[in-house]
Amino acid sequence: MSRIAYVNGRYVPHREATVSIDDRGYQFADGVYEVIAVTNGRLVDEGGHLDRLDRSLSELSIAWPMSRRAMQLVMREVIRRNGVTNGIIYLQLTRGVARRDHPFPVGVAPSLVMTARRAKPIPASNLTKGVGVVTFADQRWARCDIKSTSLLPNILGKQAARQAGAYEGWMVDNNGFVTEGTSTNAWIVTDKGELITRNVSHAILNGITRLAVIQLAGDNGLKLVERPFTVAEAKAAREAFTSSTTNPIQPVVAIDGAPVGDGKPGRIALELRRAYEAATAQGGVNG
Amino acid sequence: MSRIAYVNGRYVPHREATVSIDDRGYQFADGVYEVIAVTNGRLVDEGGHLDRLDRSLSELSIAWPMSRRAMQLVMREVIRRNGVTNGIIYLQLTRGVARRDHPFPVGVAPSLVMTARRAKPIPASNLTKGVGVVTFADQRWARCDIKSTSLLPNILGKQAARQAGAYEGWMVDNNGFVTEGTSTNAWIVTDKGELITRNVSHAILNGITRLAVIQLAGDNGLKLVERPFTVAEAKAAREAFTSSTTNPIQPVVAIDGAPVGDGKPGRIALELRRAYEAATAQGGVNG
Repeated sequence: MSRIAYVNGRYVPHREATVSIDDRGYQFADGVYEVIAVTNGRLVDEGGHLDRLDRSLSELSIAWPMSRRAMQLVMREVIRRNGVTNGIIYLQLTRGVARRDHPFPVGVAPSLVMTARRAKPIPASNLTKGVGVVTFADQRWARCDIKSTSLLPNILGKQAARQAGAYEGWMVDNNGFVTEGTSTNAWIVTDKGELITRNVSHAILNGITRLAVIQLAGDNGLKLVERPFTVAEAKAAREAFTSSTTNPIQPVVAIDGAPVGDGKPGRIALELRRAYEAATAQGGVNG
Repeated sequence: MSRIAYVNGRYVPHREATVSIDDRGYQFADGVYEVIAVTNGRLVDEGGHLDRLDRSLSELSIAWPMSRRAMQLVMREVIRRNGVTNGIIYLQLTRGVARRDHPFPVGVAPSLVMTARRAKPIPASNLTKGVGVVTFADQRWARCDIKSTSLLPNILGKQAARQAGAYEGWMVDNNGFVTEGTSTNAWIVTDKGELITRNVSHAILNGITRLAVIQLAGDNGLKLVERPFTVAEAKAAREAFTSSTTNPIQPVVAIDGAPVGDGKPGRIALELRRAYEAATAQGGVNG
């Protein structure tokens, strides 16, 4: 089955799907995106993702290209045409196509691209053995709360992490506090058993899976504190993990090469992962 | 005469020129660009632009899509096919097309797009009356020295400036020093007649026109100091101006609504502009 993409009103073979060279997404990173998981044929936390999309668009003064309801219908059609039961749908919206000039163009319709694909299997060892992260300076702009396609620092960070043999890079602000991973949120469990993740601000993206984990932590009676934590605190933690749409809760067993806790996937991380999987089988936690 | 674009080996009508939705330039802002002026049919400071392009590509580990010599031939063909005698050529290079994933893809060829257009006339009043700038916090990432397409903060800044009725926005770092404009470098002339522009670092793009102005200042016996300056210093300056490829030297007569000097275009700015125009008629200052 060949992949089908939705591009501005048309369903086209993915390989032939294109956008104008004058699309402001291409020339200026003037756009936003969402990645939503599909589990057992259902969109996971669809409402949360669309709420965040609305916020990203609003912060950039980009109009919705169609109603939310119409977009949901297109999403379902893209999933159907790609035969995705377990996988992801990717939405990219930009300010549209205009002669290249920095200020916002007038009277231009926003662009919408949607693609879907089946899940890439996550190596089993990620859960049984855990993964490592490395830390480095956060080089991103001041509005990381907007899910924009201005992702160059993120991909450079991810590449640096992979070259260092790590699964992810945790970015560190000027005060020594971890902001988040290059495509994930960052979590630790302290010696006292407290779950810590950075509070929401312009410094991080408020992950939909992050919100789900907060909800599940409450449901499971875990003590949660939303605050910044340092690299030293993370290295001394009992557990650490990452959260994201494509790999919901991933135990971290090493930071900059030093073991976290006993160097094995943490109990709380694995419990949260099981709880998350149970919830997503029902359409998500904040759907 | 309809515009022609060069896209990965083909010359196509500009309106039909497209790139894949999986181009990393579109999805991640994983690319760089250059804008080079064409004056009297000649590329202005071509060597300087290609040297900077080489540096940007190198910093991002993106390979040249063809030799420098071949690229120069394509540039000339794009200019010829578009009948541009006075205008600009735009080059955009990205890491290429790959299934969406943050790390650098392996074995993928970089993408190259080139377009050209005739000069948009600059309003005469820009020079006779000067323009205003407004200042605001620099929200960009930590590597503004790379001429990447990760330009979202720049366009938001330019839009904010235009909405404030200004020509340009000057961005201010956490210590109160001006970095640069959203698409221009920033200059002042002090009471003592010293020409000041921020020194090169990761905080600014080293403009090719900036380098030309430095050269011309030396040729004309002006005292130049490359160092950061504050907004207060700029407001108290005798003159201020911006430099860029598309509007080489633009006198600034107001900052945040307060007049600079006597509120008229400065003598040194206008002299430098004349010297620049004389040099570009011969192919540029650092060609």
